[in-house]
Amino acid sequence: MPPVKKLVIFGVGLIGGSVALALKKQTPALLCVGVGRNRENLDQAIKLGIIDTIANNTTEALSDADMVLIAAPVAQTRSILQQIKPHLQQDTIITDAGSTKADVLAIAHEVLGDQAHQFVGGHPIAGAEKSGAVAAMVDLYVGKNVVLTPTTQNNTTAVNNVRQLWQDCGAKVIEMSAQHHDSIFATVSHLPHLLAFALVNDIAARDNADELFQFAASGFRDFTRIAGSHPEMWRDISLANRNALLTEVSQFQMALANIEHLLKDEDGNGLQDLFERASLARNQWAKERNL
Amino acid sequence: MPPVKKLVIFGVGLIGGSVALALKKQTPALLCVGVGRNRENLDQAIKLGIIDTIANNTTEALSDADMVLIAAPVAQTRSILQQIKPHLQQDTIITDAGSTKADVLAIAHEVLGDQAHQFVGGHPIAGAEKSGAVAAMVDLYVGKNVVLTPTTQNNTTAVNNVRQLWQDCGAKVIEMSAQHHDSIFATVSHLPHLLAFALVNDIAARDNADELFQFAASGFRDFTRIAGSHPEMWRDISLANRNALLTEVSQFQMALANIEHLLKDEDGNGLQDLFERASLARNQWAKERNL
Repeated sequence: MPPVKKLVIFGVGLIGGSVALALKKQTPALLCVGVGRNRENLDQAIKLGIIDTIANNTTEALSDADMVLIAAPVAQTRSILQQIKPHLQQDTIITDAGSTKADVLAIAHEVLGDQAHQFVGGHPIAGAEKSGAVAAMVDLYVGKNVVLTPTTQNNTTAVNNVRQLWQDCGAKVIEMSAQHHDSIFATVSHLPHLLAFALVNDIAARDNADELFQFAASGFRDFTRIAGSHPEMWRDISLANRNALLTEVSQFQMALANIEHLLKDEDGNGLQDLFERASLARNQWAKERNL
Repeated sequence: MPPVKKLVIFGVGLIGGSVALALKKQTPALLCVGVGRNRENLDQAIKLGIIDTIANNTTEALSDADMVLIAAPVAQTRSILQQIKPHLQQDTIITDAGSTKADVLAIAHEVLGDQAHQFVGGHPIAGAEKSGAVAAMVDLYVGKNVVLTPTTQNNTTAVNNVRQLWQDCGAKVIEMSAQHHDSIFATVSHLPHLLAFALVNDIAARDNADELFQFAASGFRDFTRIAGSHPEMWRDISLANRNALLTEVSQFQMALANIEHLLKDEDGNGLQDLFERASLARNQWAKERNL
């Protein structure tokens, strides 16, 4: 298939900026147009060679665009799609980079109507603590997983082109349903965030919080690192993936109740068996990834 | 007070070995005697200049010893104290480095009887992923907290000498009751370990465990690092600190139920407020420690 000639990026931060850098390295002639609410960040993106121009308006931005990448905070997806819709040509493909997918597909269906087949949901499993265009890295996606959640509505070309975009960034592309995606990430990402937020919030609310924090050491540091994450972003993710997350919370409550029973029964063998299974699985996981 | 002239260390690993290195730097004339079950490790400790001799028997080791440091796995505390008891002179002070304190004090009381006043419980809040004498570091305790849990039985000299030992290693010494110590560490260390073990064990037991682990990323890596901890050691800690830990499990179950309700009610403001309090507290904690 022909390479993308004009890519429009809504939200030129770490995620969107890194896509632009990787694609421009591969196809220097690619025209990257940036759209965003933060002019300073967009100016910076031009200086850094991430984008070629800043869109003056949506008509101009969308004109002859092959591909639109929405890489802004997920809560902006609806308004961005509403902004795009009146100017969306028939052969432009839209994708996104949001952490939840069923909600995004529902919004795309609702806002884009009979053009919803042009939208292919995506989620690159890569990130870093920094944000903004200055954080963009040409190799952010090399060897990383990107999940696409195509629907039966999407035509093959749309899905192929989005897959190609991420493969051109060096990523490994996996396809699955939006529901399956959301369920997986509720387990391995969203629930751990909730647990870390819950623990730190609970400690911070105690009378002896200062004393408790004084004795918190490296285990606490690692366990709670994700509790320092962006509150608004995690509110949005939690609400967007509410159903899968509630299932995971229930499942975890059962797992914790099980440990509670082993403790109450002073069942040393039971505790050791459980800790061993966890420790083996965790260390195996880390070893396979050279962590 | 006169410096320690003869220090006997049961368990010359990271913890005990680092004490020896720090004290010998300060007082080169200090005689360090190592006792342990792993002869190879003790030979290594001699080569590294951590200890001066390996004890041939307990009588010889304890003879004229000013101080005994028990730095072996907590589950060995009882048998080590039983081994020490028949040879324990009246002016020898014993301390330990275990992660739980009420159980250790109870064992010391039971085994040492009318010499229990010579035992002062301690817990250095320092550690590393490596173990054994080779992992010992002269500056492991510099600027770190060490908790001592003296009782009304202890005479002032015993407590002062143990405090001095840790201060000579560069540590900051804090005194509190064993119960208070155990409650603090149930909150900031033991509960997080249980939560991490519970999560990983639960994921590992699922039919799609491989798929779930495939998509686990950096947040999961940090959150679950402590789930790779030593199963036997954590079985011992969990049982030793069972009561405080059960209190913390209940408290956490309430905290999680609270988040569950906010999610069920789709209470975005409530979730955001909670995440913000946690995020602020976590980031403030990390900032104060330059993490």
